[in-house]
Amino acid sequence: MSVYDLLLGKPLATSEERAEHIGVAAGIPIFGLDGLTSAAYGPEAALTLLIPLGIGSVEYGWRIISAILVLLTIVYFSYRQTIAAYPNGGGSYTVATENLGERAGLLAAAALMIDYILTAAVGISAGVTALTSAAPRLQPYTLEICLMILVLLAIINMRGVKDTGAAFIAPTFLFVGTLLTLIGVGFYKTIQAGGHPVAVHAMPAVLPASVGTLGLWLLLKAFASGCAAMTGVEAVSNGVMAFGEPRAKNAQRTLTIIIGILMVLLFGIAYLAKTYQVMPMQPEAAGYQSLLSLLVTAVFGRGWFYYLTMGTVLLALALSANTAFADFPRLTRAIAQHDFLPHVFILRGRRLLFSHGIYALTGFTAIILILFRGITDRLIPLYAIGAFMAFTLSQAGMVVHWRKEDKSHAGRVWHMVVNGIGAVATGITLVIVLVAKFVAGAWVTALLVPFLILIMIGVKKHYERVQAEMAEPRPMKMANLEAPVVVIPMARWDAITEKALRFGLLLSKEIKVVHIHSDDAESADSGLEDVWEHMVATPIRDAGATMPELVTIPSTFRYIISPLMDYILKLEGSHPGRKIAVLLPEMVVQHWWENALHNQRVQVLKLLLLLKGNQRIVVVNIPWYL
Amino acid sequence: MSVYDLLLGKPLATSEERAEHIGVAAGIPIFGLDGLTSAAYGPEAALTLLIPLGIGSVEYGWRIISAILVLLTIVYFSYRQTIAAYPNGGGSYTVATENLGERAGLLAAAALMIDYILTAAVGISAGVTALTSAAPRLQPYTLEICLMILVLLAIINMRGVKDTGAAFIAPTFLFVGTLLTLIGVGFYKTIQAGGHPVAVHAMPAVLPASVGTLGLWLLLKAFASGCAAMTGVEAVSNGVMAFGEPRAKNAQRTLTIIIGILMVLLFGIAYLAKTYQVMPMQPEAAGYQSLLSLLVTAVFGRGWFYYLTMGTVLLALALSANTAFADFPRLTRAIAQHDFLPHVFILRGRRLLFSHGIYALTGFTAIILILFRGITDRLIPLYAIGAFMAFTLSQAGMVVHWRKEDKSHAGRVWHMVVNGIGAVATGITLVIVLVAKFVAGAWVTALLVPFLILIMIGVKKHYERVQAEMAEPRPMKMANLEAPVVVIPMARWDAITEKALRFGLLLSKEIKVVHIHSDDAESADSGLEDVWEHMVATPIRDAGATMPELVTIPSTFRYIISPLMDYILKLEGSHPGRKIAVLLPEMVVQHWWENALHNQRVQVLKLLLLLKGNQRIVVVNIPWYL
Repeated sequence: MSVYDLLLGKPLATSEERAEHIGVAAGIPIFGLDGLTSAAYGPEAALTLLIPLGIGSVEYGWRIISAILVLLTIVYFSYRQTIAAYPNGGGSYTVATENLGERAGLLAAAALMIDYILTAAVGISAGVTALTSAAPRLQPYTLEICLMILVLLAIINMRGVKDTGAAFIAPTFLFVGTLLTLIGVGFYKTIQAGGHPVAVHAMPAVLPASVGTLGLWLLLKAFASGCAAMTGVEAVSNGVMAFGEPRAKNAQRTLTIIIGILMVLLFGIAYLAKTYQVMPMQPEAAGYQSLLSLLVTAVFGRGWFYYLTMGTVLLALALSANTAFADFPRLTRAIAQHDFLPHVFILRGRRLLFSHGIYALTGFTAIILILFRGITDRLIPLYAIGAFMAFTLSQAGMVVHWRKEDKSHAGRVWHMVVNGIGAVATGITLVIVLVAKFVAGAWVTALLVPFLILIMIGVKKHYERVQAEMAEPRPMKMANLEAPVVVIPMARWDAITEKALRFGLLLSKEIKVVHIHSDDAESADSGLEDVWEHMVATPIRDAGATMPELVTIPSTFRYIISPLMDYILKLEGSHPGRKIAVLLPEMVVQHWWENALHNQRVQVLKLLLLLKGNQRIVVVNIPWYL
Repeated sequence: MSVYDLLLGKPLATSEERAEHIGVAAGIPIFGLDGLTSAAYGPEAALTLLIPLGIGSVEYGWRIISAILVLLTIVYFSYRQTIAAYPNGGGSYTVATENLGERAGLLAAAALMIDYILTAAVGISAGVTALTSAAPRLQPYTLEICLMILVLLAIINMRGVKDTGAAFIAPTFLFVGTLLTLIGVGFYKTIQAGGHPVAVHAMPAVLPASVGTLGLWLLLKAFASGCAAMTGVEAVSNGVMAFGEPRAKNAQRTLTIIIGILMVLLFGIAYLAKTYQVMPMQPEAAGYQSLLSLLVTAVFGRGWFYYLTMGTVLLALALSANTAFADFPRLTRAIAQHDFLPHVFILRGRRLLFSHGIYALTGFTAIILILFRGITDRLIPLYAIGAFMAFTLSQAGMVVHWRKEDKSHAGRVWHMVVNGIGAVATGITLVIVLVAKFVAGAWVTALLVPFLILIMIGVKKHYERVQAEMAEPRPMKMANLEAPVVVIPMARWDAITEKALRFGLLLSKEIKVVHIHSDDAESADSGLEDVWEHMVATPIRDAGATMPELVTIPSTFRYIISPLMDYILKLEGSHPGRKIAVLLPEMVVQHWWENALHNQRVQVLKLLLLLKGNQRIVVVNIPWYL
């Protein structure tokens, strides 16, 4: 156990739950890393599409990012309200289910699950891709490094929410710190230079415009791509339960800080790109650098600060998958509580976490990483969809929530308007993203969502059937308590079968010892009939106990199992209402490999009795320890 | 079942065994194909090593093959005697065990098992390599084709020995027929031309001699390589049991015909190579053709007969693996009868064959083919060793056998001399092969043999321990028949646990209902204490039955299994001599995927009870069918 303790921490008692609740300082790295790191690729995703505009793109990019900032503000206010309204964890799933109905809830659930799995896969893979492009020698090990980071994240998260927060504070603050420094210094230099700073290093030549005017379609596509900068902001609302009291206040504060920093970062990056006249490079261009790399070079040159910034960006990206680890298990737990997922997701593990959610996320992420061999660029379009579907459903749900609210509630209409604007804005964005990215892969999400919903409905149906059979607990029935008919398959008489027969005598007065007689001279099965009289019948007669019946069944084709099964099922048919107890002696060996040495008929028989049996057939394992 | 019947034939009754016995005509393809096809590669293996001698190699090759023919004659006579002496299957394993002791028997067993697995792998792979060099388009599918042929052979053999014989008669006789035609026509042309026939097609130019004289070492190496032509001749002696009466006579006749044909083939090929002055080509040479291909071209040119012959050689090679399928299961059965392998190898399947031997051979061969991706040239040196080790042990065993024989036995000394010469000759050959091929890979066999022997000894030890515990069957003890203490783990009160408790009441008056109380508010485990009184206690009291004891165990860390296990083991400790029956309700679902929806604690508990339990703990499965 000590290896476990060392790796995962000592088990926590259920009463220690309160101590595991986190504050704002831990909340920011846990729930914010994914949202904050979006700043590292969101603006570039938008600006890349504008390259055909030439130098004009800098100006348009600035406007698109401003539009995203407005949308972000709307989303911020509506999530703030959601947290206040659902202090017990107001994830999109809960909000949609409670206000828009089960189907909408399932839609949100499926979208969010896909979103989180993709967040984990894309986050890790983006970090590792950045690493391997810096150190090409590591390229062949891309997948291995990805999986290592995945396992590391899983282990850290298994240690519980407190330890996770502690582990991620440093990388998060380093990431935010270096980017804020970049923005601050760039801003200062811009002002110093009267609005037209000169880059420390020469920037790549700006490509001439290849299109004259900006089409609406291009604008929308750029906006849709830039919305990747907003993924991850729903994380806090899904994880409110992790915070200590005052829970809602703490969560709101965390959300405010995260979105505040994110807006500063987005604004700063867009502003510097504009004043330094930096355009993103085509990813397939020779000597490609990311927009962030170009900006740091422009403001600081290629000194130690450049390498520090790029290093922390890379680290933060790789660790941004952690947000998925924080939210996915809480989400699956909420879904399982509504019977739409297996109940194991409700169980809390040794560190009070919903460990099966962590296992599931790790498993699915590993599958995706392995399928795509650690290179998941193509998945990026998929995952903004999940996020925006969840945004929209949650905002729409909040509108209904406020409408149902008591009319006297202060600010009810105002709340409704904020969430309504949020719903419409994110809904429009969702449609834009879907249309713009459908061919690029969004169709995969469009297929996966209904598939997941079908699975969840199947699970629910199953639990409902179980529930129906259990129905109301009723007092125990004491009628018809009759001893079972005991069946003991017996190949030969030895210490093992003696043990089984002794147990059978305790169970019932009606015992059938079934001997399958194969007329195969080489089999070791024969001889029971010869010893039965003096080994078994005489002692039992002497003791005055009821005599078991020896049933010998010939087997022409040397089958053992099927005549036995036939006999048991026939016996069950001819004793309606009686229980049939089948006693199966089982050899328990010391080493696993010794299992190969005893023929596995008992296991096959057990399985068949379970599959073909019914309520009245009971299997009793009589273990024999060597 | 009808798919099985179609694929593998209808099951055969044990009484039909006699009808499954084969005669000489079926014996030749079943036991002879491996030996006969050796003629296709044995002479070439010897002659290739002589290439450095230039044209002189033709003469030396002729002499080496004559020496091999002498050795083959000796081996023939001694195996003939072995069959007569052991009409119940005188495989090397049996002969060595009975005459030289257990250790020698194990050595023969290990050598033969390796030999057969390699025969199967190398045979299939040689045929497929020939096929893919004729049709290079199939090259990428080498492994797949190999595995397909393997599965095909396994299925044919599963149909029983009669069907197998019928399936292989045509390819065998086609193979023998075309080669005999080649030899006959070549012989006729040679005589016509006064001993110096002219090849129809020009042969590749004979390389000039690069060494002047023939060293002893080269001679020995060529001889050792040529001995590959003798592998497979032991097959009949291992399979005597498959023949109908007069068993020994039929087996001897089969052996005589097989070895007779093989000698004619070897002699003919060597003779034609000499008169047509054909030398083998270096395998790495451009436009490489096998010796056989060169000979057919020389005698017949490249007409339809060339393609027919090469096609049948290829087919026969691929099918020569079948001999391993005929002998391996019989060998493993004999070993298992001596307790050195798991007893499943003794069981006869639906077609009266030792099916587990076929499974094992198929499995191991598949592993080797997959490991080497279907290209097993490098394995060829390994497998002559196994064969010659078995030869030597069996001949040496026969010498001892005759010495123990009654002195009045006619021809006892003569038999001893024949087998003695056989033992010495094959023993010397074994040493030569080992030394000559050690670096080329024979060391692998030298490592594998002791490893296999260790496994077999381990298996025997296990069975001996089991035997010791079963010892002599003794009459049933009727003393101390006391009802068990019943333990029923119960999370909540419902129809399932009611069923378990009802069964428990039948078993004993001492029932412990164990409820693990996790103070986790979200778990569904609670509530049992609340309903216990009116749901359970009252009805039982009213019926006047003995009251079960409700044991509530708090679980601070939410563990369920370990407090349960602790309780059960403690209970067992405090009730010495009593049986503990643990009743485990198990949900039986309709679809396999539904198993994921019920938490798997019952399975874990069952496993733990089996592993950590002892003779006195019995598990009773109470199935609940949805």
